[in-house]
Amino acid sequence: MRDEFRAELQTVGQLLVDMAEGIRAAMRQATRALLTADRRAAEVVIARDAEIDGLYRDVEERVCELLARQAPVASDLRAVITALHVAADLERMGDLADHVAKTALRRHPSPAVPAELRPIFTDMAEIADRMAGKIGSVLADPDADLAAELDRDDDAMDDLHRSLFGVLLDDAWPYGVETAIDATLLGRFYERFADHAVNAGEHVVYLVTGETV
Amino acid sequence: MRDEFRAELQTVGQLLVDMAEGIRAAMRQATRALLTADRRAAEVVIARDAEIDGLYRDVEERVCELLARQAPVASDLRAVITALHVAADLERMGDLADHVAKTALRRHPSPAVPAELRPIFTDMAEIADRMAGKIGSVLADPDADLAAELDRDDDAMDDLHRSLFGVLLDDAWPYGVETAIDATLLGRFYERFADHAVNAGEHVVYLVTGETV
Repeated sequence: MRDEFRAELQTVGQLLVDMAEGIRAAMRQATRALLTADRRAAEVVIARDAEIDGLYRDVEERVCELLARQAPVASDLRAVITALHVAADLERMGDLADHVAKTALRRHPSPAVPAELRPIFTDMAEIADRMAGKIGSVLADPDADLAAELDRDDDAMDDLHRSLFGVLLDDAWPYGVETAIDATLLGRFYERFADHAVNAGEHVVYLVTGETV
Repeated sequence: MRDEFRAELQTVGQLLVDMAEGIRAAMRQATRALLTADRRAAEVVIARDAEIDGLYRDVEERVCELLARQAPVASDLRAVITALHVAADLERMGDLADHVAKTALRRHPSPAVPAELRPIFTDMAEIADRMAGKIGSVLADPDADLAAELDRDDDAMDDLHRSLFGVLLDDAWPYGVETAIDATLLGRFYERFADHAVNAGEHVVYLVTGETV
């Protein structure tokens, strides 16, 4: 029974790692679509979002089976519920990559992001990528320190988010309202991506240490 | 055992109804803060968000206890997992009300929404309020038809969201970039509130009918 539980939980864990890799690849491609007006990259992200949603459903089904068959308690139960939370965060991160790709596609062949904002979005995307990578690592090998690092990454993301508004609200902003609206929403997508990464990290910390951050 | 399970599930259900009432009141107050620059209303919403978060933690704890003590299977297990999903959606709806209140507060004593946009936000808020009310009803008395109505409300919300961009992108838009950014984010908060209401409704439909929408 115990070995069975471990094996089933490991399968769920592997699905989460697959999801984390999926959303990391999705946000990378979405950023490429955004910064290089790469139509094909945007289409790939949008098509593959269904795969990430499918993995989420798999996690849910397996968690339900696991609860029904093994009736775990204490820390085993905690691990199973944590897996549900992490999966929900990862699924939402996939949606946010999809939103970035759709914004790129809506403006194609024009770039959705003007030259002045590229450095900020390049940096935001780099942090998002780093955070997605850390979630993958922390899932494969739970490590509270690495999960806590996600908090610092999120602070850096928030700083970039603020500097984005600084550029948009500068009197010298030459691009008008439509580009400002796109940039506002794009900024929010990256920032929410980071928030969900922090949430997922906190759930893993809770799993490892039993303490809520 | 069976009676105990029912009683515990009912307690969880009551917590969800409390959450639904809490987020409905929050979004109402947040809208008042937004449309009438009512500082006090905004502060109440922000202060009470912690109460909604507390209810969410209560739901989670009770669900974990319930799973550990009763080891439910089949439709009982489904009901318990559904409660977790609904609670997560409601918690997020509370955050969105909090974001609306914070936007109102940031611009106070100026109104965050100019006169031209008031009718749209008034309508968005009305739909949001109706949806929050339906979630409360559907939780108290599960009804797949009522849950499906949420989908139509969401379509109406999406129409309003589109018409908001129509106003912002009109050449005659006189308020500049800052007000457009606020309106963009506010529009997104109401629209996401509706999305989460639909999600919560779908979970209840699933609970009642066993079918995913």
